[in-house]
Amino acid sequence: MSTLTWTRTGGYSGRVRVDRARLTPIDHLARRTRLVAKAAESDADAWLFNDLTDVRWLTGFVGSNGWAVARGDELFVGTDGRYGDKAREETAPVGATVIVEQTGAKLHERLIEVLDGAQVSLDPSGASHATWSSLAKEVDLIPSPSPIKRLRQTKDAAELERIELAASIADRALAEVEPLLLASADTPMTELDVRMELEHRMIAHGADDRSYDTIVATGPDHGARPHHGASRRTIVDGDTVIIDVGALVDGYHSDMTRSWVIGDSTAQQREIYGLVRASQQAGLDATVAGAPAERIDAACREVFREAGYIGWYLHGTGHGVGLDIHEIPFHSQTSTDTVMTDYVVTVEPGLYRGGFGGFRIEDLVHVTDAGPRVLTHSPKRELT
Amino acid sequence: MSTLTWTRTGGYSGRVRVDRARLTPIDHLARRTRLVAKAAESDADAWLFNDLTDVRWLTGFVGSNGWAVARGDELFVGTDGRYGDKAREETAPVGATVIVEQTGAKLHERLIEVLDGAQVSLDPSGASHATWSSLAKEVDLIPSPSPIKRLRQTKDAAELERIELAASIADRALAEVEPLLLASADTPMTELDVRMELEHRMIAHGADDRSYDTIVATGPDHGARPHHGASRRTIVDGDTVIIDVGALVDGYHSDMTRSWVIGDSTAQQREIYGLVRASQQAGLDATVAGAPAERIDAACREVFREAGYIGWYLHGTGHGVGLDIHEIPFHSQTSTDTVMTDYVVTVEPGLYRGGFGGFRIEDLVHVTDAGPRVLTHSPKRELT
Repeated sequence: MSTLTWTRTGGYSGRVRVDRARLTPIDHLARRTRLVAKAAESDADAWLFNDLTDVRWLTGFVGSNGWAVARGDELFVGTDGRYGDKAREETAPVGATVIVEQTGAKLHERLIEVLDGAQVSLDPSGASHATWSSLAKEVDLIPSPSPIKRLRQTKDAAELERIELAASIADRALAEVEPLLLASADTPMTELDVRMELEHRMIAHGADDRSYDTIVATGPDHGARPHHGASRRTIVDGDTVIIDVGALVDGYHSDMTRSWVIGDSTAQQREIYGLVRASQQAGLDATVAGAPAERIDAACREVFREAGYIGWYLHGTGHGVGLDIHEIPFHSQTSTDTVMTDYVVTVEPGLYRGGFGGFRIEDLVHVTDAGPRVLTHSPKRELT
Repeated sequence: MSTLTWTRTGGYSGRVRVDRARLTPIDHLARRTRLVAKAAESDADAWLFNDLTDVRWLTGFVGSNGWAVARGDELFVGTDGRYGDKAREETAPVGATVIVEQTGAKLHERLIEVLDGAQVSLDPSGASHATWSSLAKEVDLIPSPSPIKRLRQTKDAAELERIELAASIADRALAEVEPLLLASADTPMTELDVRMELEHRMIAHGADDRSYDTIVATGPDHGARPHHGASRRTIVDGDTVIIDVGALVDGYHSDMTRSWVIGDSTAQQREIYGLVRASQQAGLDATVAGAPAERIDAACREVFREAGYIGWYLHGTGHGVGLDIHEIPFHSQTSTDTVMTDYVVTVEPGLYRGGFGGFRIEDLVHVTDAGPRVLTHSPKRELT
């Protein structure tokens, strides 16, 4: 028996008790103050937030339906009856007025009341055209990027604690599952078996959930697909393996990828893997405060280009991570973002080719004035 | 040891092998034909689909970024480099032209080429205002509800197979976990323990994943919140318990809720539970082809109103289920939808009150000419 098991008497054996009560509380009042300071720069006198992650960041409310409005000294949260009690409890510290209606039509009426007569800032990327058109008939909308999305890029100490804890939980789960994976030529596992083991263990070790659908992409076809999920394919000797795994803690995500070859590697596998490692190190070295995200992408890309493998690189090099698994900044060839102190970003180049498979290596990095601080500590193995 | 366990030699013990190869293939060509027939009713000569579920339904492509365009005899799928190989393989049966670009800007250019000169139907509910405004500068957009969303309501035999299999997998997992739950006053479990057991077992029994984040809402506070998730709260004697759980099979969801009291119930608990059972039965009885969704909602609501508990009912009564866990029709007081033959919908009334807790009972129902066919078979226990 090699797995973590739950017993009627002992709970999950091997469980590490994470003392979540010791996490620094999130200070939503401070965020509200930061938003009000931003607001002074704008022509708007009310801000409507439709994006549920923005709503959570600002007010503490977590649900699948709702909005927030900041207007002068007042903060409003609107949602439906499923979330009334929850919204009132979660937003009490920030002092929001919670509006609860059972139908979308009534909730819309209440929103219009709250916005009446204001110049309303709304992000056109975060509202559907139908919502926008409907609101525009009744209130003055000013299209402007969400100021919260910008503010969310800079993580405070409480956020860093959660992200770091999430990363350490994923490290621990992967450390336990890696020996099973490496022995899988002898004792077969499917991609989905590996995924289940990882996700099960992350929760047992204190995560609230997986950070995203864990990717286990193996062999010449699946391994060549950067966002292959996890199938019932049985892992076999000679496979390339990509595992992309993270944990969720109090809404905050971690993100990490490691790669392997099952059994003995070929010379070509070692060459490609070496390029990915070199590219990823170049990306880490470039992840310093003030660096354009485009330049970090270019640092990774250059290693592949020089080696003649740029055609095997199929995606961007990184992204911000926080309450969303993918958030600004995005590291791509066309990015205009800049990476700053206390951003948390990924660096994740990879090479993929049908018939060969693929490799990706990804770390989660806290950008500090003293340079990149890597939060994901799982070893990057040498191929043998 | 009471859990399903994975062993190095035998895989998951207790695993039921689901022979997925025997599932009837999804006929995407037939869907394309259905769409073209719909198209003849419209002024548009091209249809742009931004909703990823619509894209999947029409073309077979599954990814986190992409669009589909139907124009005359041609079908196009656009996506980024992470999904190129996958999109080509998945859309080969339907004969789509796959367009792959690594940056959003380039993919947008290619989309404009595909749409050039056409009258383009686009759903304003499914596109952001920013996307809409950007497209509207370059092509003629006709705002119209997605015809695919309407077509998706009617499930064919292959879809029903998958939904029914998903429902049976959730039934099986719940049957295994229920004894642990009912003994939890003696052998403590947290809400998250129950969730983990259910999700782990669904995958072991053949699901691709959970259908949604399993809800385990227990006790006087959490139980009063219809969409409480699952926390580290330990379940105790006298708790009301709501478990809302479903499985995912080949993209298709199931959805089911059952409720319990741990240990001996009180007279009030039995009264409230009895009302929820009666309301849910009234809703099932009303779920016949041709019924307005509003009338199904009213059937459930009436039971609560007559008993004086309507203030404890905090949400709508049901929704469609398929490739999305929540899709049209929606059963609410303001719904204008009608339920038709071969729709698959939920019926899920509940009563909730802070300090008391709550109960919800939900079945997944296939609407047939012979009446409602319930797909979720877990017993609805009597309280003792």
